[in-house]
Amino acid sequence: MSRGSWAMTKTNRAPGRTHSDLVGLAEIEAAAERIRGTVVRTPLIPDADLSEATGGQIRLKCESLQKAGAFKARGACNFMARLNPRELSRGVITYSSGNHAQAVAFAAGLKGVRAVVVMPTTAPKVKSDGARRLGARVEFAGTTSEHRRVRAEEIAAAEGLVMVPPFDHPWIIAGAGTVGLEIYEDWPEIDTLLVPIGGGGQMAGCTAALRRLTPEATLIGVEPVGAPTMRRALDAGGPSTLPAIDTIADGLAPTRAGDLTFAHAAAFLDDVILIEDDDIRRAAAHLITRRKLVVEYSGAATVAALLSGCVAARDRQVCAVLSGGNLDTSLLGEILAVDPAA
Amino acid sequence: MSRGSWAMTKTNRAPGRTHSDLVGLAEIEAAAERIRGTVVRTPLIPDADLSEATGGQIRLKCESLQKAGAFKARGACNFMARLNPRELSRGVITYSSGNHAQAVAFAAGLKGVRAVVVMPTTAPKVKSDGARRLGARVEFAGTTSEHRRVRAEEIAAAEGLVMVPPFDHPWIIAGAGTVGLEIYEDWPEIDTLLVPIGGGGQMAGCTAALRRLTPEATLIGVEPVGAPTMRRALDAGGPSTLPAIDTIADGLAPTRAGDLTFAHAAAFLDDVILIEDDDIRRAAAHLITRRKLVVEYSGAATVAALLSGCVAARDRQVCAVLSGGNLDTSLLGEILAVDPAA
Repeated sequence: MSRGSWAMTKTNRAPGRTHSDLVGLAEIEAAAERIRGTVVRTPLIPDADLSEATGGQIRLKCESLQKAGAFKARGACNFMARLNPRELSRGVITYSSGNHAQAVAFAAGLKGVRAVVVMPTTAPKVKSDGARRLGARVEFAGTTSEHRRVRAEEIAAAEGLVMVPPFDHPWIIAGAGTVGLEIYEDWPEIDTLLVPIGGGGQMAGCTAALRRLTPEATLIGVEPVGAPTMRRALDAGGPSTLPAIDTIADGLAPTRAGDLTFAHAAAFLDDVILIEDDDIRRAAAHLITRRKLVVEYSGAATVAALLSGCVAARDRQVCAVLSGGNLDTSLLGEILAVDPAA
Repeated sequence: MSRGSWAMTKTNRAPGRTHSDLVGLAEIEAAAERIRGTVVRTPLIPDADLSEATGGQIRLKCESLQKAGAFKARGACNFMARLNPRELSRGVITYSSGNHAQAVAFAAGLKGVRAVVVMPTTAPKVKSDGARRLGARVEFAGTTSEHRRVRAEEIAAAEGLVMVPPFDHPWIIAGAGTVGLEIYEDWPEIDTLLVPIGGGGQMAGCTAALRRLTPEATLIGVEPVGAPTMRRALDAGGPSTLPAIDTIADGLAPTRAGDLTFAHAAAFLDDVILIEDDDIRRAAAHLITRRKLVVEYSGAATVAALLSGCVAARDRQVCAVLSGGNLDTSLLGEILAVDPAA
């Protein structure tokens, strides 16, 4: 487990690696053009309390305010824009813990395309309700990302639907990368990025953009201690399926990193740090009570890394990506009982 | 009570009136220059649900994300920037239901100036705690704006402090007007503004900016049915003190409109509409559950006007100002029990 001292793992970057399979800046810029006006250009908001507490300048990239409540709308809209009319007429399907499902429902709805989404039986109600409200047919299957992928592939085959992968696809990564473009446009002085890792799509896109735009910046992925898929993949030299996941951050809980997202992590990340669920709870409480932002546990992971002191931010310009806001509101009582300063 | 049909009260605007006492665009632009970097340039966020529900394009100006949690930081910082060193050395005092108190504490803290704030005994704990955390001495006095004004003037006289008025002062209005400037910069197509009215400072500043920048826009103030101070003042031709106030929106509850803010309302507003507390509750629930924004009741008033259908927004470009986010979190349970669609 790595805490603090990110510099030690600079070796994770493999400069000799061939980058031909990695998403390029031009693809991300093209995605930005494609989805402009369809998704929200989300704000970058300073956090005075976190800045004071850490001695750095901390700004929050608020993907919690994105359409369908998470950065996922970017990848889904970019993917849908790349499909041809014949593919669109077949309809689309995806599998997701919830945010990607809502994003696909949203993107399909805009084009009047039929969408089916397969979610875990444990999906937060806010996310399954959201996907339905956006017009998708919701199917439930098992509890792990593997369970739902298998079921989605069965349905896709039976109904002739086009699969929209949740993260491990260059169109999805390029869409997510527009978050990185916007951060740099708004704050070219950024020298440290904190981005949560679930399947790794947002991390892959953001680092693909920022590594090219500001090569010297320190790019750090954040995972829960109980779901260290990318940390393990980097340590082992490739992804493997974890036997179990244990975290409150449902969006960061795939059991296996993507192959393509792993390649981006290996090429572009300086480190992956692991945070405790208790720090995520404190971060969510801080964001709601002090920043007036409703952020889901997965989205609060980067702030948890700062609040816990896992990342040294002194004298640095740090952007923490808040990846989503789809918090089950039944959790609010629990969150508000947490003292963010404890 | 006026609901809907704002055009009928265009006569509220008194084009023959001498505007010499009104805050000018140049003063607002100077304030913007003065407070740049000290306050947050808050985002303007589209609300897809409200847009669909109303048939208009609705965007939210998120002063809930402002420093100290409300637009008030703008006026307080502008006021403080206009004081000379001798005045600053004396320290400052104000009276406020809470948000202006926190704003003065914030602005004084930045300059290392002593601040005393007088709040009602009924002030939400989030606001009194906030003022203390920002370094102010908090005094409590009575329940109405008159009670606390009298107490603040006593303390100011006894301790030689400079009074920072909560709304009825050109420096405060010019600071608040920077909200209007930013809205226009981000969205010159705006044709309808909804702004809440408490004492009237934000309304005065925003309308002073927008009436000059986009003269044909419809500018509408929003007040609770139980606190119609500006509506009554416009109907009667001048402010008077209301015998009682009854609303959950503590920030919109002064018992009397300001003389200067009234002059702005008479010159610039197209209408003041009145909304019910139940609509405010629904609006706050909508903003938290769907927009992922924690907004206080006073700040949700403009969205209440849209949700309730009091304002016809079809085919219009409507900006609703969310004036503040300092919601007592003990209210969250109550709010989340409300169905925004009910």
